Amino acid sequence: MGGIASAVGTLLVQGPHHKGFVSSLAQLLASAGATVVDSSHHAEAGMFFQRIRFDASYLERDLEPGLEALARRHDMRWRIAPPDRVKRVAILVSKQEHCLYDLLLRHRAGELACAVELVISNHPDLAPIAEHFGVPFHHLPITAATKPMQEAALLRLLDDIDLVVLARYMQILSPELVARFPERIINIHHSFLPAFVGASPYRQAHERGVKVIGATSHYVTAELDQGPIIDQDTIRCTHRDSVEDLVRKGRDLEKRVLAAAVRWHVDDRVLSHGGKTVVFD
Amino acid sequence: MGGIASAVGTLLVQGPHHKGFVSSLAQLLASAGATVVDSSHHAEAGMFFQRIRFDASYLERDLEPGLEALARRHDMRWRIAPPDRVKRVAILVSKQEHCLYDLLLRHRAGELACAVELVISNHPDLAPIAEHFGVPFHHLPITAATKPMQEAALLRLLDDIDLVVLARYMQILSPELVARFPERIINIHHSFLPAFVGASPYRQAHERGVKVIGATSHYVTAELDQGPIIDQDTIRCTHRDSVEDLVRKGRDLEKRVLAAAVRWHVDDRVLSHGGKTVVFD
Amino acid sequence: MGGIASAVGTLLVQGPHHKGFVSSLAQLLASAGATVVDSSHHAEAGMFFQRIRFDASYLERDLEPGLEALARRHDMRWRIAPPDRVKRVAILVSKQEHCLYDLLLRHRAGELACAVELVISNHPDLAPIAEHFGVPFHHLPITAATKPMQEAALLRLLDDIDLVVLARYMQILSPELVARFPERIINIHHSFLPAFVGASPYRQAHERGVKVIGATSHYVTAELDQGPIIDQDTIRCTHRDSVEDLVRKGRDLEKRVLAAAVRWHVDDRVLSHGGKTVVFD
Amino acid sequence: MGGIASAVGTLLVQGPHHKGFVSSLAQLLASAGATVVDSSHHAEAGMFFQRIRFDASYLERDLEPGLEALARRHDMRWRIAPPDRVKRVAILVSKQEHCLYDLLLRHRAGELACAVELVISNHPDLAPIAEHFGVPFHHLPITAATKPMQEAALLRLLDDIDLVVLARYMQILSPELVARFPERIINIHHSFLPAFVGASPYRQAHERGVKVIGATSHYVTAELDQGPIIDQDTIRCTHRDSVEDLVRKGRDLEKRVLAAAVRWHVDDRVLSHGGKTVVFD
Repeated sequence: MGGIASAVGTLLVQGPHHKGFVSSLAQLLASAGATVVDSSHHAEAGMFFQRIRFDASYLERDLEPGLEALARRHDMRWRIAPPDRVKRVAILVSKQEHCLYDLLLRHRAGELACAVELVISNHPDLAPIAEHFGVPFHHLPITAATKPMQEAALLRLLDDIDLVVLARYMQILSPELVARFPERIINIHHSFLPAFVGASPYRQAHERGVKVIGATSHYVTAELDQGPIIDQDTIRCTHRDSVEDLVRKGRDLEKRVLAAAVRWHVDDRVLSHGGKTVVFD
Repeated sequence: MGGIASAVGTLLVQGPHHKGFVSSLAQLLASAGATVVDSSHHAEAGMFFQRIRFDASYLERDLEPGLEALARRHDMRWRIAPPDRVKRVAILVSKQEHCLYDLLLRHRAGELACAVELVISNHPDLAPIAEHFGVPFHHLPITAATKPMQEAALLRLLDDIDLVVLARYMQILSPELVARFPERIINIHHSFLPAFVGASPYRQAHERGVKVIGATSHYVTAELDQGPIIDQDTIRCTHRDSVEDLVRKGRDLEKRVLAAAVRWHVDDRVLSHGGKTVVFD
Repeated sequence: MGGIASAVGTLLVQGPHHKGFVSSLAQLLASAGATVVDSSHHAEAGMFFQRIRFDASYLERDLEPGLEALARRHDMRWRIAPPDRVKRVAILVSKQEHCLYDLLLRHRAGELACAVELVISNHPDLAPIAEHFGVPFHHLPITAATKPMQEAALLRLLDDIDLVVLARYMQILSPELVARFPERIINIHHSFLPAFVGASPYRQAHERGVKVIGATSHYVTAELDQGPIIDQDTIRCTHRDSVEDLVRKGRDLEKRVLAAAVRWHVDDRVLSHGGKTVVFD
Repeated sequence: MGGIASAVGTLLVQGPHHKGFVSSLAQLLASAGATVVDSSHHAEAGMFFQRIRFDASYLERDLEPGLEALARRHDMRWRIAPPDRVKRVAILVSKQEHCLYDLLLRHRAGELACAVELVISNHPDLAPIAEHFGVPFHHLPITAATKPMQEAALLRLLDDIDLVVLARYMQILSPELVARFPERIINIHHSFLPAFVGASPYRQAHERGVKVIGATSHYVTAELDQGPIIDQDTIRCTHRDSVEDLVRKGRDLEKRVLAAAVRWHVDDRVLSHGGKTVVFD
């Protein structure tokens, strides 16, 4: 980290709440020459979570050894997002285009501080969209029989990827693949979890006669639709809304809620603990 | 109905969708001398639902025989809310005051076009509130052993009541009592149903780490928290919200969502079919 | 109108509130063989507004003469949207792409029941987007000196257009052009009107320190930002939001609010009276 | 401050952004024996704002001299809210009861960490409400002629008051009185400022035909409705909403938005700078 030329780094820490930890960390940063730009702090149930953005232009010495020592002493986890490297993102899709377009448009508008490295799909349909935005597209068809091979191919493509975004990818990833990307796979589920887990949530919502529908972005874990929730939003509906209307209204929610999760993740704003997230927004 | 002196009556009809029904109904109203003030119509899955408000000041003849004939021909249900009779409402509470205050304040402000006849509770705590608003208060304590007797007493108090509002009444009514008031008991559940059915929904929500909480008002049926939903609303929450914060935020939701359901019900805006509601707002 | 092969027509009427009008209209439709599918009604300040969707498959006779007679008798305005003709839409843009993409994507998804005939811009920048969606693009540059000529060219392109959508078109149309399309030009203004009229509303909002920002879609009239409002929506913001954050958050609002207005207009859900709109949603 | 027995103090600081300030402050707190419980930080346009909650149970030495020295060096403002003193609040009302009830109910529910010392009104109407909650009520009638005397009486009543809440108090305070309570008078305005400044905002909103209405809580300054905004919220409305409906919907907004401002203020979450607020929520 020493010698970084410019701009702002982000430090995330989490661990058991110890008296004096905040000032130890502040002193460590100060003695390394890092000026704090921005700092957020959360404490809950004996745990603390902190996000510090610091000017890394003139670091007098490396932060990592000091952090490592502090972490050992306080039993904490930490990671630094250096200012000179944006996260490399892969987007997985099936046939629905709205989330893919939305992410690529937001990326082009500068809303997502990451590099979209590739789009991968089990169907060829969305290739023209990737092409329109100049992003490589990979078609990896999948059947029950070929799933292991498809996932092996997928893993090769994801080799140096920091974040996998399931933008209405209608396949369930194997536990093995999920385990390779802890807190690094984001999914959008088209309901207000924990309501309407599984398939056809808009149909389920219509049958139940709800007056609000929702969407949920979450980290993917081995259990379907049970991972830590990053963002949720809802919209009112009425008896006049058919399933198709719910699908239409839901698309807007899905786009916003998925994009928020991706933006917060690539900005290193999300920490996860005990099946829940802390989002420093 | 003939001879009503003034003001506006409301007609609600529902039944299988028949060609020509709308114009038959319009002609029936016209020939009785009723001027339509306002009309809403909904059709779905072979059913239609209509709400007509009409000037009942100068009805030349009674509407009821004509409606009855039309209903037999078209297999429809109908009811008329005459302009000269407001619904009589009973509010059931336990120890929490926020929904009771809210309903009584809205009633006093003219938001709820009904008569609040009495407040009933299994605890004495909220008696001073009823007294403050000049509403009779009845204390009907309940234990597992005395439940049948308590419900018998309750039924006597509800004898000429049109609508029962469970404003955080923490008791489950017996199926027999529920059957006496079909689509005439409204409950507030402090979650976004169908998520977090049953006890302690805010605690459940906190444990799951949701980013939105909700409240649901619904007609009470024999199955717990499964009745037709009348209104729902949600509010964002974050990792900073403790269970107590969710309870606090939720109180605002509960008040609004329950009051909306009561207002729509007493204004004859709600029809129910197949476990869902049509709300003509 | 007689002899229309299939599907649903829409009738919009507005005028002074006359006793018996609703049933006259119902009888007229019935006698022409039109079955009412859906009907909404609004009365306010001595005016009534009605939208009726009717099955036009088996019209026994033309509705227009009867409507014309009724209109003369009741001093009302009416229009019929026949089922076999979708509105022809032109989208005008400058350099910002988000609303254009959004409209074209929603159109492709079937959310907007119209034909997007052409995209017109005073800059060439967005031509590739129109091309990507297969819509003709016309570049009509404009300067203070060439404005009359540009508008003449514009008018020729708009010759058979039913609706003009200003999707962040940064030019002010001349009163003459506006007068040619009464209630047929929709603009998106990036503030909660009447707050922050004119230029740079997000900058104005940031300077005032508001905690909510908004967007407004409205019909264009001769007075800048004063036309009848069709839709508005808002989103919370905080002290942490820079002008750029407001612009980002606002883009989402602008897209939704403009798309809603276009959808309602092309579905013949919007009536205008006294500088305000009635939206039958 | 030395010797405080228990609980959590709050430190608010604001000033020009200086390198190293954050760590100076952290060291100062650490050396006094204060453990940071919670910390928020905001920087904008060369200014920084920070809120630190610290465990003040075992302060080894007084914080104030160190803060004073730091403040002189960095040209910053600071204030400490000691853990053992809640703010003393006066509520001013006229004839409308909804905000008064709401504040008193929230206070009783523990939502507002302050002491409601007295209710003051230019009308006697709401005295029974104050009495119901056991809060002293003072009736100070006002006419154009008696305004100076009334304000003199008002000032005497406000002698040891920390926060004045104008809960639909329909009088304009004199600049002299306002100057006595800088950033310590909170008003609720029943519109989305800066739209609809001044009288009858709901009527203005209805005439303009807006599709969203709002409410704004703000610090009172000498200029009417121009003070720093603390909170705003909005609700959708339609053509069906009469002025009375807007008033009804608005009451809910007013209550929430005023209560949020009071809660944040008494929790020392609000800093003001350049006509805007920083709210550490």
